[in-house]
Amino acid sequence: MQEQEILYQTSPEVLAKLEAATAAATAAQESADLAQFMTNNMWIFISAALVFIMHLGFASLEAGFVRKKNVVNILFKNCMIIAIGLLTYCLIGFDLMYPGDFNGWFSIGAFTSLGLEPTAEGMTAAYADYTYYSDFIFQAMFAATGATIVSGAVAERIKLPSFLVFATIFVAISYPITGAWKWGAGWLDQKGFYDFAGSTVVHSVGGWAALAGIILLGPRAGKYTSKGIRPIMGHSMPLAAIGVFLLWFGWFGFNGGSVLSADPGGVSLVFTTTSIAAAAGAMGAFITSLIMFKNYDLPMVLNGILGGLVGITAGADVMSVTDAIIVGFIAGVIIPISVTAFDKAKLDDPVGATSVHLVCGIWGTLAVAIFGDCADNYGSFGAQLLGILAIGAFTFIFSFILFYIIKVTMGLRVSEEEEEKGLDIMEHELNAYS
Amino acid sequence: MQEQEILYQTSPEVLAKLEAATAAATAAQESADLAQFMTNNMWIFISAALVFIMHLGFASLEAGFVRKKNVVNILFKNCMIIAIGLLTYCLIGFDLMYPGDFNGWFSIGAFTSLGLEPTAEGMTAAYADYTYYSDFIFQAMFAATGATIVSGAVAERIKLPSFLVFATIFVAISYPITGAWKWGAGWLDQKGFYDFAGSTVVHSVGGWAALAGIILLGPRAGKYTSKGIRPIMGHSMPLAAIGVFLLWFGWFGFNGGSVLSADPGGVSLVFTTTSIAAAAGAMGAFITSLIMFKNYDLPMVLNGILGGLVGITAGADVMSVTDAIIVGFIAGVIIPISVTAFDKAKLDDPVGATSVHLVCGIWGTLAVAIFGDCADNYGSFGAQLLGILAIGAFTFIFSFILFYIIKVTMGLRVSEEEEEKGLDIMEHELNAYS
Amino acid sequence: MQEQEILYQTSPEVLAKLEAATAAATAAQESADLAQFMTNNMWIFISAALVFIMHLGFASLEAGFVRKKNVVNILFKNCMIIAIGLLTYCLIGFDLMYPGDFNGWFSIGAFTSLGLEPTAEGMTAAYADYTYYSDFIFQAMFAATGATIVSGAVAERIKLPSFLVFATIFVAISYPITGAWKWGAGWLDQKGFYDFAGSTVVHSVGGWAALAGIILLGPRAGKYTSKGIRPIMGHSMPLAAIGVFLLWFGWFGFNGGSVLSADPGGVSLVFTTTSIAAAAGAMGAFITSLIMFKNYDLPMVLNGILGGLVGITAGADVMSVTDAIIVGFIAGVIIPISVTAFDKAKLDDPVGATSVHLVCGIWGTLAVAIFGDCADNYGSFGAQLLGILAIGAFTFIFSFILFYIIKVTMGLRVSEEEEEKGLDIMEHELNAYS
Repeated sequence: MQEQEILYQTSPEVLAKLEAATAAATAAQESADLAQFMTNNMWIFISAALVFIMHLGFASLEAGFVRKKNVVNILFKNCMIIAIGLLTYCLIGFDLMYPGDFNGWFSIGAFTSLGLEPTAEGMTAAYADYTYYSDFIFQAMFAATGATIVSGAVAERIKLPSFLVFATIFVAISYPITGAWKWGAGWLDQKGFYDFAGSTVVHSVGGWAALAGIILLGPRAGKYTSKGIRPIMGHSMPLAAIGVFLLWFGWFGFNGGSVLSADPGGVSLVFTTTSIAAAAGAMGAFITSLIMFKNYDLPMVLNGILGGLVGITAGADVMSVTDAIIVGFIAGVIIPISVTAFDKAKLDDPVGATSVHLVCGIWGTLAVAIFGDCADNYGSFGAQLLGILAIGAFTFIFSFILFYIIKVTMGLRVSEEEEEKGLDIMEHELNAYS
Repeated sequence: MQEQEILYQTSPEVLAKLEAATAAATAAQESADLAQFMTNNMWIFISAALVFIMHLGFASLEAGFVRKKNVVNILFKNCMIIAIGLLTYCLIGFDLMYPGDFNGWFSIGAFTSLGLEPTAEGMTAAYADYTYYSDFIFQAMFAATGATIVSGAVAERIKLPSFLVFATIFVAISYPITGAWKWGAGWLDQKGFYDFAGSTVVHSVGGWAALAGIILLGPRAGKYTSKGIRPIMGHSMPLAAIGVFLLWFGWFGFNGGSVLSADPGGVSLVFTTTSIAAAAGAMGAFITSLIMFKNYDLPMVLNGILGGLVGITAGADVMSVTDAIIVGFIAGVIIPISVTAFDKAKLDDPVGATSVHLVCGIWGTLAVAIFGDCADNYGSFGAQLLGILAIGAFTFIFSFILFYIIKVTMGLRVSEEEEEKGLDIMEHELNAYS
Repeated sequence: MQEQEILYQTSPEVLAKLEAATAAATAAQESADLAQFMTNNMWIFISAALVFIMHLGFASLEAGFVRKKNVVNILFKNCMIIAIGLLTYCLIGFDLMYPGDFNGWFSIGAFTSLGLEPTAEGMTAAYADYTYYSDFIFQAMFAATGATIVSGAVAERIKLPSFLVFATIFVAISYPITGAWKWGAGWLDQKGFYDFAGSTVVHSVGGWAALAGIILLGPRAGKYTSKGIRPIMGHSMPLAAIGVFLLWFGWFGFNGGSVLSADPGGVSLVFTTTSIAAAAGAMGAFITSLIMFKNYDLPMVLNGILGGLVGITAGADVMSVTDAIIVGFIAGVIIPISVTAFDKAKLDDPVGATSVHLVCGIWGTLAVAIFGDCADNYGSFGAQLLGILAIGAFTFIFSFILFYIIKVTMGLRVSEEEEEKGLDIMEHELNAYS
């Protein structure tokens, strides 16, 4: 027996080599893990940059769809919204939306969690496939989107400071609360509500707030007359088209980044479904508006593209290409019908934001129940409807009350003279073009 | 002897450790391979997004170069082209162009290969350095480019539905067939024809179709008069300049993505040669137009940049920086000469698309034979010429016949009144600016 | 003893397995290293593309802020600047700026170092976390920025050929020399001067050259009258706003790429500080201009965003989010004050380039000393001041002399008639809009 024990001995050199091989394999694994982490993280911060460009998309689209006399005003709003969005999300929104992850529910003053110093935790901690700062900047770029959607719908008649107060409170409080219900692993998430990149959490939220604003503001002067609806055309179709293409471009980050990693299958599927839905949205709006208006209607096709994008957003990761064609096409069909319906209801939305973001947002969320190949217990029709209603009700009521308070305190609508002469000259003493 | 056998025994622990080290090394290798796959795949889908933005580039450029009365029309066309391009490529083009890779030659109905469900194969199968969906979306963004090139050349006088029918059939059938000859590993590829990112396969193809359209349409009213050529100026130079810069930006994906991986050497060389050729193209057009017209001619410089980009595209991966300067500069020199020659031939091209995409596409393809450092049996002068002629002949004839059929059935050209009043009001009932 | 030696023997199979495990671990490490290299390199070339888009940002911004009659001229300049910048950087600038790295100080003709052929060294040599070509194209995109800043400040009155001569020599010689002092590991670097991405090395350099040009050119006709300062409004606020958003977008590459790798912590912190500073800059300019002018001043907010971006650039990697808010906000506050001060000094700068790039560039460089958490021996107040003064003095004197020589030889300013009628018609025979 003793002899056998001796026989098992291995020379120190071989043992050292084995140690070295094991250590080398471990080191290689760590390097490979770091390489994956770097790639995943890079896709998140590139996605943040892409989502950022959506704010230029919104600015261009909204500027193009308003009249010449209100262009400076809408550009000013869009500049301030991104600033307000980033700062408030940094100050309270981020912690409010992801309470579990960082430092507790409703941690106002959570500011400090972003760091008085660039902490090692913030820069390297792989609590996910990306850093804390990547997470923040990606989510922060999303946050302002809701308010931007509102700005288009209430354009040409809302007082600038009133809008800015609304946008600040809306982005700082309302958006993160409903966002937390789903993306903060909150109660809606536990009920099985599925919303991949935010057809409901982002787009319909913006749409509900827009609707509240539209109702309290009333239509633009001269839109709904005793002789019928008077179309008020946007002042620059090139600007509007640039806006839509940039939004599509940014949506690669909005949806693609929502994979939350550079997972090759996940992101490439999402790129495909997103683009195909946008294309089908254009087609749906093209055909429907041709039938309805006997016309090649550019604004409808532009909004059809956006409708397709909003529609696919809830389920871009759980749909086939075929599904994406259907979801996008129906979203495109919805656009001219919805725009016409809102006009009949005398709800005046200069850019069609409610049709695009609210109606197609709802459609996309429901479409998950019809087409989505979700994980267990997610995406049932009931869960989707619950999510739409719960987030819709909260957002609409919050926004309505907030707009109402602003209306009775600061006032919401500019004077008739100001509306007539244009907000650019009256509020900014500047013409957009000279 | 028996003793020696016993001596070779190694303890179970050591053997287990060895097993573990081997397994760890294998796992590390797999992780590292996945990391590389993730990075390669990411570059392809980011490139798809960059190529997408070229469609905004084309839309802006073409809108800037047409008259105010036809802006909505050109924007509408560009929105529909990207939609048509993506959908037809999804339905038949992709399989038609890469028949060997997927499910056989000319597999109309191949639609299903993109999946009724997001298949595991589509999302993960590394048949290359990227997924099936990444491949599709990258190639699909290319597909619409050809038709976009046509839209600029036939602008301001073609009937919208006629153009849309042409674009659909052209993108669905003609482009993938000639594309398959080279990129589908077809007969031209086997003959040694070299076309890295598509000077011929994409750009000259668009140019030939444009030429066919121009011939059958005839010039815009009032362009070629008894008193000589009357220049018809574009309505917005800022739009045109934005278009060119966005095209350059997108070209980083068009050429860079054509490396088909994130290969550090390959992509960084291509970025350098592409940009340097664009810069040299600007310089060539600047100097040549200064000599020819005694003028600092912005449209020529803008088209010089594009000419440089088209010129380098066939050989961006097989040229030195010095080569890129020469190829780009000559492309820039070609632009004012070619534009002038087309005008003398009374071939009216409002945006200079034939000079940029056809003439510089041919130049760039031939330049591979002169400067390119290709792999064996590729890029001889004979092979390049064969590729130019074969693809040119097929595309021109296909396009001419298709345009001709459309002409005698649907009609190709708008009425004189429509051309006079502008397509925006007549076909879209909308002014671009109000 | 002999028996024990024998006991240490290990079977050839086990030894072979151990060899194989070791080799596998080494191979895995190499694959993982390559994966990291690919990711790092990819971020550098993507950053180059993002910095490229800043040139469209500058073109749009400057075009928007000049009068309609000078738009073609500013677009022409911006097209030529990027061409000149890339070509001269390729011919001499790159080697002049990084003398140690490649082939020696002031190696005119260094052109060849970029290769008559695409060398293996250029494409793969990992002298850093990226290839030689990635390094070149990233740095080359920076190089033209300085001249672009000048073009805005001297707009609407400088002769085009005179400007082009200035831009060529400035980008080819002045920018790389001062750049080498810091980024070429030169004497300022050794003195502890800290400038992460170029508040001084790029932005203030452009600002000083702009100031020299403004002084020698004098103000635009009619700007400073006996009755006081007459504001001359830009012709298109949408163009200006598009420019600012695109600059912000490009800044993700400008600052993010300056990490010189895809280091997850580094880049994600830089993305966050950069965006937060831009947002705070908008807020600072908004509040300050509201107080100063009782007005919602869009151009001030646009320049406030840019001021925030320039301000954070020197220390984006060594500041916390809190610091970024303060630095950006102060930069925003500076903008309206500085613009007013320049106007009082009758230094006419149509786009506010000196306030944005020079004043906020200085502020940002000093802010590093106040807030920056730099490595040892870097970023002291003394070192920062030394850098500002040394680079400022060299650049201002170089530019002043160069502009002066051009003034007495070619002439610097267009004729009164040309200024009155506009440079577009007089130098380009083309209207920007028709």
